[in-house]
Amino acid sequence: MKIRVGQGYDVHQLQEGADFWLGGIKIPHTHGAVGHSDADVLIHTICDALLGAANMRDIGYHFSDKDPQYKGIDSKILLKDVIKLLKDANYEIGNIDAVVCLQAPKIGQYIPEMQQCLANVMNISVDDVSVKATTTERLGFVGRKEGVAAMATVLISKK
Amino acid sequence: MKIRVGQGYDVHQLQEGADFWLGGIKIPHTHGAVGHSDADVLIHTICDALLGAANMRDIGYHFSDKDPQYKGIDSKILLKDVIKLLKDANYEIGNIDAVVCLQAPKIGQYIPEMQQCLANVMNISVDDVSVKATTTERLGFVGRKEGVAAMATVLISKK
Amino acid sequence: MKIRVGQGYDVHQLQEGADFWLGGIKIPHTHGAVGHSDADVLIHTICDALLGAANMRDIGYHFSDKDPQYKGIDSKILLKDVIKLLKDANYEIGNIDAVVCLQAPKIGQYIPEMQQCLANVMNISVDDVSVKATTTERLGFVGRKEGVAAMATVLISKK
Repeated sequence: MKIRVGQGYDVHQLQEGADFWLGGIKIPHTHGAVGHSDADVLIHTICDALLGAANMRDIGYHFSDKDPQYKGIDSKILLKDVIKLLKDANYEIGNIDAVVCLQAPKIGQYIPEMQQCLANVMNISVDDVSVKATTTERLGFVGRKEGVAAMATVLISKK
Repeated sequence: MKIRVGQGYDVHQLQEGADFWLGGIKIPHTHGAVGHSDADVLIHTICDALLGAANMRDIGYHFSDKDPQYKGIDSKILLKDVIKLLKDANYEIGNIDAVVCLQAPKIGQYIPEMQQCLANVMNISVDDVSVKATTTERLGFVGRKEGVAAMATVLISKK
Repeated sequence: MKIRVGQGYDVHQLQEGADFWLGGIKIPHTHGAVGHSDADVLIHTICDALLGAANMRDIGYHFSDKDPQYKGIDSKILLKDVIKLLKDANYEIGNIDAVVCLQAPKIGQYIPEMQQCLANVMNISVDDVSVKATTTERLGFVGRKEGVAAMATVLISKK
């Protein structure tokens, strides 16, 4: 059994009044993330980490932000598509660990729900998907509340 | 033996005259990192990577920066607590690789001492904890010397 | 067989008129990355991830940016040197996954050529080196086109 590692990094701008989708759920907040899809930065970085581990290019390659069919799309659909790509190549997920970099709001209380949602979409155990959160201590674009960033790392293996 | 991966990212502001704790040791410098604890960004990111690998939430969950008992605390104590959490769950550390993003001072000369200190705190071999350093070429909040960031990745396995 | 993980992070400034080396190939663009060497941020982060996994310090330790012998050097030579260090210690590469953070130009079309070039330099299969790309949605120093950043994660094992 060969184990492979992957990582992802993604950023979205925050805008007043926009919906804030994160980890597949909607966070109640004055500002939300904006992008071509629903701008779920956590799902996007997990997609990229999974694709990278399997050496299947990146999220922009599979789901172009110029393609109207992905306009406003629920990122859970993209993640399901990525999971199918990996499954078709006989990969299974070992575990996923992600961190969301966000100055406000505090999202700790929503993390268990995100984990459950992500586990359901990927059809894996909630034990195998970890979500963490950190501020950047008011520094940089995250600290100025201009954007939200997320990083993820994953292990996958060939069945 | 199931292997799991984890990653961490942490940031602290730099301030003139503050102590600069990094990797468990005090770096002589005009500026130091500030935070609720001793602001040791390298230890914090290692804690987060270990907790994430074990799917045990994050450092903010276990050691709230609102809790007075952690005011000014030596982050080595937090790392010891994290190690105990992992040990109680029968996890052992494979290896840790971290990078400190800092514009100044150059910290290369202190790295072996940091590695030894971290290995001692975690009760692992110094061969299994790597610390690297990079500037960000004067770009961003690290480049402007407003802050210090650190990232870590870890492998752990269940005994 | 003990598996080890490593990660890298590197940044270079962009400058009008400079050559833009990325992943071992030259990208046609109005701006390029600048540094002491050829400023190939993707190769540098892969070097750091490999050195970190093997606990052999970092790229700055082995190839000082004060050393005239590395002035303008082709980073493929540095990567070859890193590969030799790992080989001499009986490590072999499992897989590498990297992401380039760059606002412009779009580099997706160049990725297969980068992967092939990197695989050749490291004498590994192109299946074992993944390169991804992302913008930072016009945020931060990458978004302002002041610089390019790259991250990588790797697995290695002892033969």
